[in-house]
Amino acid sequence: MRATVMYGAGDVRIKNVPDPSIIEPTDAIMRVVRASICGSDLWPYTSMEPSESGQSMGHEAIGVVEEVGAHVRTVERGDVVVMPFAISDGTCEFCHEGLQTACVHVGFFGNNGTNGAQAEALRIPYADGTLYPLPVGDDDALLPSLLSLSDVMGTGHHAAVVAKVAPGKRVAVVGDGAVGLCGVIAAKRLGAEQIIILGRHPDRIALAREFGATDVVSERGPEAIERVKELTGGHGVHSVLECVGLDQAVETAIEIARPGGAVGRVGVPQHEAIPGAEPSFYNNITIGGGPAPVRGYIDDLLPDVLEGRIDPGRVFDRVIGLDEVPDGYRAMNEREAIKVMVNPS
Amino acid sequence: MRATVMYGAGDVRIKNVPDPSIIEPTDAIMRVVRASICGSDLWPYTSMEPSESGQSMGHEAIGVVEEVGAHVRTVERGDVVVMPFAISDGTCEFCHEGLQTACVHVGFFGNNGTNGAQAEALRIPYADGTLYPLPVGDDDALLPSLLSLSDVMGTGHHAAVVAKVAPGKRVAVVGDGAVGLCGVIAAKRLGAEQIIILGRHPDRIALAREFGATDVVSERGPEAIERVKELTGGHGVHSVLECVGLDQAVETAIEIARPGGAVGRVGVPQHEAIPGAEPSFYNNITIGGGPAPVRGYIDDLLPDVLEGRIDPGRVFDRVIGLDEVPDGYRAMNEREAIKVMVNPS
Repeated sequence: MRATVMYGAGDVRIKNVPDPSIIEPTDAIMRVVRASICGSDLWPYTSMEPSESGQSMGHEAIGVVEEVGAHVRTVERGDVVVMPFAISDGTCEFCHEGLQTACVHVGFFGNNGTNGAQAEALRIPYADGTLYPLPVGDDDALLPSLLSLSDVMGTGHHAAVVAKVAPGKRVAVVGDGAVGLCGVIAAKRLGAEQIIILGRHPDRIALAREFGATDVVSERGPEAIERVKELTGGHGVHSVLECVGLDQAVETAIEIARPGGAVGRVGVPQHEAIPGAEPSFYNNITIGGGPAPVRGYIDDLLPDVLEGRIDPGRVFDRVIGLDEVPDGYRAMNEREAIKVMVNPS
Repeated sequence: MRATVMYGAGDVRIKNVPDPSIIEPTDAIMRVVRASICGSDLWPYTSMEPSESGQSMGHEAIGVVEEVGAHVRTVERGDVVVMPFAISDGTCEFCHEGLQTACVHVGFFGNNGTNGAQAEALRIPYADGTLYPLPVGDDDALLPSLLSLSDVMGTGHHAAVVAKVAPGKRVAVVGDGAVGLCGVIAAKRLGAEQIIILGRHPDRIALAREFGATDVVSERGPEAIERVKELTGGHGVHSVLECVGLDQAVETAIEIARPGGAVGRVGVPQHEAIPGAEPSFYNNITIGGGPAPVRGYIDDLLPDVLEGRIDPGRVFDRVIGLDEVPDGYRAMNEREAIKVMVNPS
């Protein structure tokens, strides 16, 4: 079968690889119906050291179960499923607490040798815990929004939950990538009164407004902080969704939070220390977040997708086949596309 | 009257200064019954640049109201009161939210020119919001514990609240100073099942055990992390109370937190960035805290003090007069005393 392999920065290839097969009795084999390229795939795309063996890529997918191991109970051949980006067994204490990304058997698709989903098919470890069966066919019109539940919508939701978004609150979203845009959806869904998006790409900003952003701040650094303060009566926002991961973005996130406010960070950190130790302390700002337990959030978010109350699938503004995946990386990296969906069939 | 003035690192003097007087109609004048020296006073004691005018010191006190301005309504001459370390007006939105340390009129006693409480008396701005009247006389046997409500007990409690201590949780307290010891009291009071104190001073550790600590970790750095993991089934604690403020302590706090756990930091940060951006992210650790809104916590804590369920006054292991305050700083700095109480009369 064909799969996407990255061999170094800027070097993404479609390769013929062996078909996946059941190894453990808890495995399933999933045919990929839709996959996507994630903003976090762009970090290795711009920085990966050359590798001879390469890394199988992709951690977001909707698929159809093709085969299950002897111990698999909750999914069966033919099921249409969401594949969250993290493997989770569904039975450990962390899974029971709803933090599936800390599962004692956690693994991340397309990372550290685990197979990726930008492929025709892949092996799914702990299929019962990992996969989420959907009540739709594999050609459903909602596939893009359902696909977003595998990462980007759940991740934006996680930022909003950790940032304690609630009815009537003032919210800022730092970053206008697909996660930031889903953060806007999540903030509106949770009842935010004011939603300020910090970003500067006209196409993304326009979509953010459609999703519910009430204000746009295109400045950066101290000017952005000043502008948010102006928009919020001088005190800043209750909740900040940090959807970038760079030092300046995190620093801005802390500075625009109101005293007693909270920052939910879901941008993969590109630094060793969190800036703003003093302002976050003196203003009693809470900083939380991390890899989103999207598997646990599907129960909450799915009804809103199925009943059309949210439409996160709109972040996908390009659909390509597997052979075009290398160009998809380029397009996302050059901000030519917001987010790319892959149809491997 | 006599008051404590710091003129530089290690240079604390008792000076004759003008008696305080009402300046604003919202002021009160408070005679100091008991004051204390705070761990945070030791930061300037070891690092303050020489100053000709000096800084009036002290931010923890129990006192008696001697005089009130024309607009003061809730305290009157003769009232015995707690003086929290922060000035708060009691009427702004932050005070209403219970974050008095973010009051729009906030000020900190013994800081930036505000008079300190290691003195015979001082002016109290926004007396209605700041002072908390007590139902005791000025010679009550509970004075030490009541004095702790002005900072150290409320601060330990804040760390516990921010760290989400709750019944059945595993808790670690980083630091065995007076705040850490009060953190142990707070954790036990909130129902923690396991309370691990990280510290190495035998007298403090002994007191921590009496306050409810179930385990002691005297190692530091990687050894301390490993030891806490061993004591907690390999995963770490739900809640960490960070009561030091140094880089290594914060790093340890993050590393010993269980995935999904929370760190409440109340040690004044001695760094610009919070270490551990990556482990805190990948484990979804929440980091919060800051100057404790102790004024707001008195309602919760006072009944437990008055009815003898908690006895935080035991952290005071030395009582001195005003003239001995310079030696009190030395004794605390050399870890000869846990915490020093000052009786200025």
